[in-house]
Amino acid sequence: MTLMEKAKQGFVTPEMERVAQAEGVEVEWIVRSLAEGTIVIPRNVNHNTIEPMGIGKGLRTKVNANIGTSPDSADIAEELRKLRAAIEAGADTVMDLSVGGDINHVRATILRETTVPLGTVPIYQAAIESQEKHGSIVGMMADDIFQVIEEQAQQGVDFMTVHCGVTLETVERLQRQGRLMDIVSRGGTFMVGWMLHHEEENPLYDQYDRLLDIARRYDVTLSLGDGLRPGCLADATDRPQIQELIIIGELVDRAREAGVQVMVEGPGHIPMDQVKANIQLEKRLCREAPFYVLGPLVTDIAPGYDHIVAAIGGALAAWAGADFICYVTPAEHLALPSPEDVREGVIAARIAAHAADIAKGNSKALARDEKMARARKASDWEEQIRLAIDPEKARRYRGESAPSVEETCTMCGAYCAVKLIKEYLGGYGECR
Amino acid sequence: MTLMEKAKQGFVTPEMERVAQAEGVEVEWIVRSLAEGTIVIPRNVNHNTIEPMGIGKGLRTKVNANIGTSPDSADIAEELRKLRAAIEAGADTVMDLSVGGDINHVRATILRETTVPLGTVPIYQAAIESQEKHGSIVGMMADDIFQVIEEQAQQGVDFMTVHCGVTLETVERLQRQGRLMDIVSRGGTFMVGWMLHHEEENPLYDQYDRLLDIARRYDVTLSLGDGLRPGCLADATDRPQIQELIIIGELVDRAREAGVQVMVEGPGHIPMDQVKANIQLEKRLCREAPFYVLGPLVTDIAPGYDHIVAAIGGALAAWAGADFICYVTPAEHLALPSPEDVREGVIAARIAAHAADIAKGNSKALARDEKMARARKASDWEEQIRLAIDPEKARRYRGESAPSVEETCTMCGAYCAVKLIKEYLGGYGECR
Repeated sequence: MTLMEKAKQGFVTPEMERVAQAEGVEVEWIVRSLAEGTIVIPRNVNHNTIEPMGIGKGLRTKVNANIGTSPDSADIAEELRKLRAAIEAGADTVMDLSVGGDINHVRATILRETTVPLGTVPIYQAAIESQEKHGSIVGMMADDIFQVIEEQAQQGVDFMTVHCGVTLETVERLQRQGRLMDIVSRGGTFMVGWMLHHEEENPLYDQYDRLLDIARRYDVTLSLGDGLRPGCLADATDRPQIQELIIIGELVDRAREAGVQVMVEGPGHIPMDQVKANIQLEKRLCREAPFYVLGPLVTDIAPGYDHIVAAIGGALAAWAGADFICYVTPAEHLALPSPEDVREGVIAARIAAHAADIAKGNSKALARDEKMARARKASDWEEQIRLAIDPEKARRYRGESAPSVEETCTMCGAYCAVKLIKEYLGGYGECR
Repeated sequence: MTLMEKAKQGFVTPEMERVAQAEGVEVEWIVRSLAEGTIVIPRNVNHNTIEPMGIGKGLRTKVNANIGTSPDSADIAEELRKLRAAIEAGADTVMDLSVGGDINHVRATILRETTVPLGTVPIYQAAIESQEKHGSIVGMMADDIFQVIEEQAQQGVDFMTVHCGVTLETVERLQRQGRLMDIVSRGGTFMVGWMLHHEEENPLYDQYDRLLDIARRYDVTLSLGDGLRPGCLADATDRPQIQELIIIGELVDRAREAGVQVMVEGPGHIPMDQVKANIQLEKRLCREAPFYVLGPLVTDIAPGYDHIVAAIGGALAAWAGADFICYVTPAEHLALPSPEDVREGVIAARIAAHAADIAKGNSKALARDEKMARARKASDWEEQIRLAIDPEKARRYRGESAPSVEETCTMCGAYCAVKLIKEYLGGYGECR
């Protein structure tokens, strides 16, 4: 039985207890939310070396880091460095998006090494193998796709992106409307290419029950991918994007009926003023399935700084109800990220998630900020560094520039307001 | 006559024409907005080497970079490096907050070198000179303060932060309520210390007409400082902060009546869900005076990454109507920023400002993103780099990691969606 099926029958498992404890909520509420599908705990039955972690309504906003090889950079040691960088920086999940080198070996290694849930996009492997076997990506057969999905499920992958909502109907809407950037999702592109080549419906949609059967057997959480996500602000919230989301909503219902855990992926490139509408649409059309957003990126013009662009969009999205943020690194749109880029990306996404959790009134998040404020008031620098989201970087900044007046920093020195106001105001009493 | 007085009489000056041209708006509208006070053009009559630039309602969101020496780091060459870094990165104004070394010489040098308007906080100089002359900051006399203001105005400073709203009434409200972080504004701290020491009203409030007289003679734009801005999320939007803002609102009226250009400074540390209310409050209480915000910082726990924290808050604030964003660098709360920190801070603030301008429907901002999208669609990497907010960094990322398939990048290589979808979909027509 999947965790969802168990929850529907009212069983309380150790996974549910761990999630309840980590979030500071009642386990009964976790059970109910899992049964209803507003929360998922991505955890393959064959992957019990990871810490259980919940994603969804009412929980702390979670952060994913994408790693993985490319044809131009397929070094497994480098990917393990990225995995460690992501986990050390506080990523809640990792996705292996490898498309270069021996990707089966890369995935097996990462599955063994990771302490957080691992996600994949199985169509990548199917595309690579089809290229080798049939000489083209679109030459793959439906059975090839399901075979890869089954292999990866058996191997222990905790959640999988599957582009089931990219259907002939979606593509027709795309062609009828026209778009500046067409499709920027790799998986979405493969599926569209396949459908146009074979003149057939997307097998992940057509044989969705077959997919659900595999997912149920291994308790793989399905992440319904947004193949039609906008690749630039000009394409945001357009007909093909929303058409796909409607179809995904129907597929959420069918997954829940089958006892399969399911979440929904979202954009993408979205101007600030459309972010909230996108979250509300997903929550309504997909009956509050956990929403997993990529960014969103609120401008197209900042390659080299897209982690900051995504932090703005991610904070807005999470505040509006997105449950799970996929990080974006400074290398986005330019190159495969380095371990340092991975670290910067995870921290930026965690800042966005935390700021949103505060705005949503999460008491654990609020308490952490109050602790930092008290450390600042006390000029307790060791405590400030300990409480920092990245203690190492905070220590480096302070260490590189030692103040002559010990309790201050080199910005103000003896003119430190925090120091002076204590003299001026005296102890008139603590904050009430 | 000040630009505001000229505008009130319907004169159109070259400054107004330059601003209208830069913003793509009618000059008549600039004149009207200047007369009403919803726009300022900070430009001292003795500082005509800078490009005129407008701040306020309906204009592109502007970005300020703070530079300046501290007692621990007082190297003028380093400050000039920061000035150049700020201007190269696209700062619209610079503030010299020097409190270390020969600050008169530093200011004179920066005034000569800058191509953008320069702001200062004259109370810093008054405090330093008082420390030397009277042995304490609070020992300064009211006349000392006005003498410094006059000197700096005569020298050519374009806008000045003056903490006129920190009054005995504000301090009483602070003491009655209590606060976690008390006061974190240096200028605010000096004024409060002064008032408590002398048991007298703040001279910048008490002799406000004297201040207005100086400002009018040199057309210095007053920036009414928020001495009581919250230093942590727990103190946000509290009684002393809003009490000060009410008083500032009254002082805005008096400045406008005197023909003095005036803007208002705002917080600070504010959780995401309180940002919009803060902007609306300022706009209502201060009759739409241009709002100049510091950050805001939407979490306290990210020293080393406060440029990202401020980008989230700044984007939200600007979208809600803030006109002018003061950058925050990665060094905030830890050390005096380096030129590289200045660069990172300016870019982060510009991203926030641009994302907000898009959300506000600024057509120039939107057009730039569409150009970038077209360059991406065409796989035109030179154009993408040219359009990037920081072409140098974008080029560095791409250069460090050269792809084997020329039109792609090392993230996806041959599996580039942008490349493949052109094959699959063919030319079904442009975006309509």
